[in-house]
Amino acid sequence: MSRVGQAGFSSAAPGSTVWRNTRPVTVGLIGAGVMGADHARLLSGSVSGARLGGVCDVDETRARRVVEATGARVLPDPFALIADDDIDAVLVASSDPTHEAYVLAAIAVGKPVLCEKPLAPTVDGCQRIIDAETAYGSRLVTVGFMRRYDPGYVELKQALDDGVIGAPLVLHCVHRNPANSPGQPSAAVITNSAVHELDVSRWLLGEEIVEATVHTPRPAAAAGGTADPQLLVLRTASGALVDIEVFVNAGYGYEVRCELVGESGTVELGMPSPTVQRRAGVIARPLAMDWRPRFAEAYRRELQDWVDSVRLAAPAAFSPAATAWDGFAATYLAQACVRALETGAPVTIDLPSRPKLYEP
Amino acid sequence: MSRVGQAGFSSAAPGSTVWRNTRPVTVGLIGAGVMGADHARLLSGSVSGARLGGVCDVDETRARRVVEATGARVLPDPFALIADDDIDAVLVASSDPTHEAYVLAAIAVGKPVLCEKPLAPTVDGCQRIIDAETAYGSRLVTVGFMRRYDPGYVELKQALDDGVIGAPLVLHCVHRNPANSPGQPSAAVITNSAVHELDVSRWLLGEEIVEATVHTPRPAAAAGGTADPQLLVLRTASGALVDIEVFVNAGYGYEVRCELVGESGTVELGMPSPTVQRRAGVIARPLAMDWRPRFAEAYRRELQDWVDSVRLAAPAAFSPAATAWDGFAATYLAQACVRALETGAPVTIDLPSRPKLYEP
Amino acid sequence: MSRVGQAGFSSAAPGSTVWRNTRPVTVGLIGAGVMGADHARLLSGSVSGARLGGVCDVDETRARRVVEATGARVLPDPFALIADDDIDAVLVASSDPTHEAYVLAAIAVGKPVLCEKPLAPTVDGCQRIIDAETAYGSRLVTVGFMRRYDPGYVELKQALDDGVIGAPLVLHCVHRNPANSPGQPSAAVITNSAVHELDVSRWLLGEEIVEATVHTPRPAAAAGGTADPQLLVLRTASGALVDIEVFVNAGYGYEVRCELVGESGTVELGMPSPTVQRRAGVIARPLAMDWRPRFAEAYRRELQDWVDSVRLAAPAAFSPAATAWDGFAATYLAQACVRALETGAPVTIDLPSRPKLYEP
Amino acid sequence: MSRVGQAGFSSAAPGSTVWRNTRPVTVGLIGAGVMGADHARLLSGSVSGARLGGVCDVDETRARRVVEATGARVLPDPFALIADDDIDAVLVASSDPTHEAYVLAAIAVGKPVLCEKPLAPTVDGCQRIIDAETAYGSRLVTVGFMRRYDPGYVELKQALDDGVIGAPLVLHCVHRNPANSPGQPSAAVITNSAVHELDVSRWLLGEEIVEATVHTPRPAAAAGGTADPQLLVLRTASGALVDIEVFVNAGYGYEVRCELVGESGTVELGMPSPTVQRRAGVIARPLAMDWRPRFAEAYRRELQDWVDSVRLAAPAAFSPAATAWDGFAATYLAQACVRALETGAPVTIDLPSRPKLYEP
Repeated sequence: MSRVGQAGFSSAAPGSTVWRNTRPVTVGLIGAGVMGADHARLLSGSVSGARLGGVCDVDETRARRVVEATGARVLPDPFALIADDDIDAVLVASSDPTHEAYVLAAIAVGKPVLCEKPLAPTVDGCQRIIDAETAYGSRLVTVGFMRRYDPGYVELKQALDDGVIGAPLVLHCVHRNPANSPGQPSAAVITNSAVHELDVSRWLLGEEIVEATVHTPRPAAAAGGTADPQLLVLRTASGALVDIEVFVNAGYGYEVRCELVGESGTVELGMPSPTVQRRAGVIARPLAMDWRPRFAEAYRRELQDWVDSVRLAAPAAFSPAATAWDGFAATYLAQACVRALETGAPVTIDLPSRPKLYEP
Repeated sequence: MSRVGQAGFSSAAPGSTVWRNTRPVTVGLIGAGVMGADHARLLSGSVSGARLGGVCDVDETRARRVVEATGARVLPDPFALIADDDIDAVLVASSDPTHEAYVLAAIAVGKPVLCEKPLAPTVDGCQRIIDAETAYGSRLVTVGFMRRYDPGYVELKQALDDGVIGAPLVLHCVHRNPANSPGQPSAAVITNSAVHELDVSRWLLGEEIVEATVHTPRPAAAAGGTADPQLLVLRTASGALVDIEVFVNAGYGYEVRCELVGESGTVELGMPSPTVQRRAGVIARPLAMDWRPRFAEAYRRELQDWVDSVRLAAPAAFSPAATAWDGFAATYLAQACVRALETGAPVTIDLPSRPKLYEP
Repeated sequence: MSRVGQAGFSSAAPGSTVWRNTRPVTVGLIGAGVMGADHARLLSGSVSGARLGGVCDVDETRARRVVEATGARVLPDPFALIADDDIDAVLVASSDPTHEAYVLAAIAVGKPVLCEKPLAPTVDGCQRIIDAETAYGSRLVTVGFMRRYDPGYVELKQALDDGVIGAPLVLHCVHRNPANSPGQPSAAVITNSAVHELDVSRWLLGEEIVEATVHTPRPAAAAGGTADPQLLVLRTASGALVDIEVFVNAGYGYEVRCELVGESGTVELGMPSPTVQRRAGVIARPLAMDWRPRFAEAYRRELQDWVDSVRLAAPAAFSPAATAWDGFAATYLAQACVRALETGAPVTIDLPSRPKLYEP
Repeated sequence: MSRVGQAGFSSAAPGSTVWRNTRPVTVGLIGAGVMGADHARLLSGSVSGARLGGVCDVDETRARRVVEATGARVLPDPFALIADDDIDAVLVASSDPTHEAYVLAAIAVGKPVLCEKPLAPTVDGCQRIIDAETAYGSRLVTVGFMRRYDPGYVELKQALDDGVIGAPLVLHCVHRNPANSPGQPSAAVITNSAVHELDVSRWLLGEEIVEATVHTPRPAAAAGGTADPQLLVLRTASGALVDIEVFVNAGYGYEVRCELVGESGTVELGMPSPTVQRRAGVIARPLAMDWRPRFAEAYRRELQDWVDSVRLAAPAAFSPAATAWDGFAATYLAQACVRALETGAPVTIDLPSRPKLYEP
């Protein structure tokens, strides 16, 4: 029985638009923290063709707060939510270690699931999801690497694909947060933060990373002992270099930069400040203090694309959505970078070959 | 009988969110040209809680093209569409001279209507709409001045309202299109293009324009005889100045600029280019060739806000939506500026006083 | 007897470079205030082929302070300084009303003179200088409109002359100071500040201004009653428009902007900030608090070009230097703008025809 | 006998300014190629207190061309030029391998010498200069690392020293040329180009580099086999990281970038484009095609500072001039980076300790 049948949608071929006036996709949300609440707000108020059906959180007060704002039901048990007949698709925004179980449960009942990154914190966990989805026989899992939907990254990739800069040689990335839990494990700087660059590098360049070195300066005083900032240097299969400055206690604000250097030119993210102020001796562009304003539009487009793919029972032809395979690769790469950080030496990365299900 | 009852929505008080899971607002679209088709696409694919119910255009082929892309019905008669029981709200994107009749018809059946600018090309036409809406007793009409939803303008207004720059003294505006119908009437440069600045100036400054002068240089060769560019200089009731360069045959691209100068600083629109390219001797930011990419996000937010207000049977508390009164004022101002253009002398503007219905 | 003979230089034809290893031009400085002291510093330490010979100021302490820093002599009487055999050329940086007498004295002894703007505060005063120089028979007078040497303005003019933007249609200027003497006469905003834009507009566009209108908003509170800011709108002989926002109590910093709009594109001054800082929630470019850092390079190039022209006994072939005629025109225009300010009506400007001596 | 005596200057104590009206420093130039000709032009026309006395080049035609433009003598033998009684100070702009001999000859006759980078291409050559200068007993040698005089780098260093960004952690550098000799040795990318960043990193951070790793992507097609671009990662004694992208066949233009990341903020070089153009679908900042326009002001200030120090018989109190020791360190570092490039492994750098003569 196909997913389409399971989810109650018309069996129209992908590309058909008859679905557009059928009933909305009913989403069940697991995790009502900062990210979950944002997703709930978007699904209820800014995404076409979706409704929030149920919300589940270990902290029922948080779940209720989200429900009040949207009119959905609170469901105490995440597995019951996943199995609920009213729920067409599942959005997992709970704590990292819980992702695997919920994603596997969604696959088990044949429901589309959008899982916040990471797909799972361990390579083994990701592998189990790959195995389950492969056994199911078609793709149900999307991983929430939302930068692939950011208008800047999209335009950057388009410029590359249009040949504006020639073949890529070097990708420079900067990822700064104003502050983070002082004293967190140094590995978390990679697995929580740099992992976004690991994913977006693979996506932009369209190839795999084969080697990683991590250089670390003296840590920032505000980092409380964590190795922060870090400078990751990666090599791709075709020989391009990627360098990533990740600095999660940078103090001054949230900022993401990305410049792709090609054989004949470069393209970089613009600075998306809606206004420029002149006051007290400076021309100033305001910066946000966290990632949500910076990537608000990316989150909206990601959810819309996901909802569209659920209604179509197929991803859009040119969807940039990250698959379970991309989620596996991101965790695999992040773990390799952690080893490079811990050993101080280059680490060769030998990603397993991509299962057939994830071929384009 | 209230609009809410007419449109079939719950009678929940404004602010309630119970509506969010009720059936979507069914919109009837009149006009399937460039703007209408864009609105149809947004309503069908990017706006929460809405569906496109019917489409009507003098050119039925255009209407059918929009319908194919969305699954809505083609309706041959605009007045039948407005009256259709399945249609909750009306979106008018037809040619300027037809706006008045459709808006009046929507008011007659008590349905919310979003009318592309201008509300009507003549002050008398706008007055008839004001009279009809006043007779109806509550606001049904929204005018599509989408810039009020642009993140840049919104942040600019916020900075002003937050006191970042002190009291406003001068507002500089630039409005450039790459090309326009050569030889069009010089008045159209004001009524079609500068009218956006007329509206946004009133909205940003929160006060009325009381005088206008129009300076014209030698016309651009590409303008084919039209007085283009033009430099409008306006004075507000409190004594602020607004200057507007409008140049609809500027050749190089589409661009809108706005800087508000206050007593202690200024705030201006940023340049929203998602990427910056380096190639062939320049650092370049790409410009769009028409207004739609520049204001894509503004259009989406405008439609979402309008659909939300229809579902709530009330405008959101802080909605920037332009009312029929704003539409009246824009046409009134544009006509005064046309007189200033034609006479070459300052024109005093004595806007009638605002009817009670439009008080905040 | 030629100026060259008077000044003791070789009679080499213009363009010859034999002069380059002869003795330096000895400059006499009248006025040791802020501008004079800056000029003295540049002449002594940053200009090739010049030395400061004597300094004169009504306040002898100021003169002595400049002399201590440079090794020149203090001369108590300005007319004695002008006549002194050791002095080859005169730099007038004294108070505005004294300029005329010193320039006339320099012409009387056939010595080159660089006079800070204005050449003279009245049209009649400027006329007497024109008459004296015409009677002398060759050009001795340069007026210190230094913006003509600013790398930004020079590149802007070059882009125009290279045809990058097509024929000019509109020139937008902004001129802001952080603060100024509160309550100064409103005319001074034009004659002291906007006069720079009046000169640079003529120079950039290569034609005369024929009409002026001055719009004034409610004055800034910090202006203490002075009409500030002001918006000047000028029309050139060929029909281009120039608008100038001049705001000498803008609070936040010193800033000069200029954008020239042509038939097919525009060129504007870049923002010359050597660094960009990220701190405390902003990306910030520091602004200077007065004009000297902004135009430091322009002042240096202006002095070097003047000294070169004195040594060559001729202006460089492509010198942008402002002549006495340009100084006359600037004062003439400024007075017309003052009338436009005072009457609130457009003023037609009928500049006398240019004497033969000033033809290019 | 002191240098001061040799050069014929007054024996005034450093800081005195009596010298300012004495005769100019007469400079002998060795090397009349692109750089030499530029220096000759600056010395003759844009530097205060200097004159070009003699020019020497292996290609006498080139020497004569420079002489024609300036009025100096052609001298056939560089050592005769150095020894010539009329020559106060020597400027070495000849080919790299010749630098050492000319600098040693200048030291031998006790004359100040400004040597273009590199001081010498080998560490041993630099050591011989250090030894000779140490034996002479006071500093005569300046190395032409002109970036230390660039207004952007100076303001960047000032911001760091003022505490604007906190203690430094990471320095990002980008150095791109549009094209270079295809197939040149890969080491030359470091010794000719990246060496500027090696020097400026030491100067900005005020400490030594202790380790270097060089990462290389697949070479650019235009590089003709040279390892280009390269990514150098350096570590300083205090634990800061420096990364340098050097790409001498970048195609699109000449560009230098530098961002210093501190504990609480960052400061980076602004983009010094005097104008911004709008044309044909872009907002464009023009880029130069080589380094000379970008660093024109730095070269002028460097020469002026050098001439001042010669006249004062002492460096200015806060001169950023690179000493022979800085020249030694730059060559030492560059050689270490070449080893890192060739071995593909990190190289520990153990700079000898600084001789007393070079203490601040």
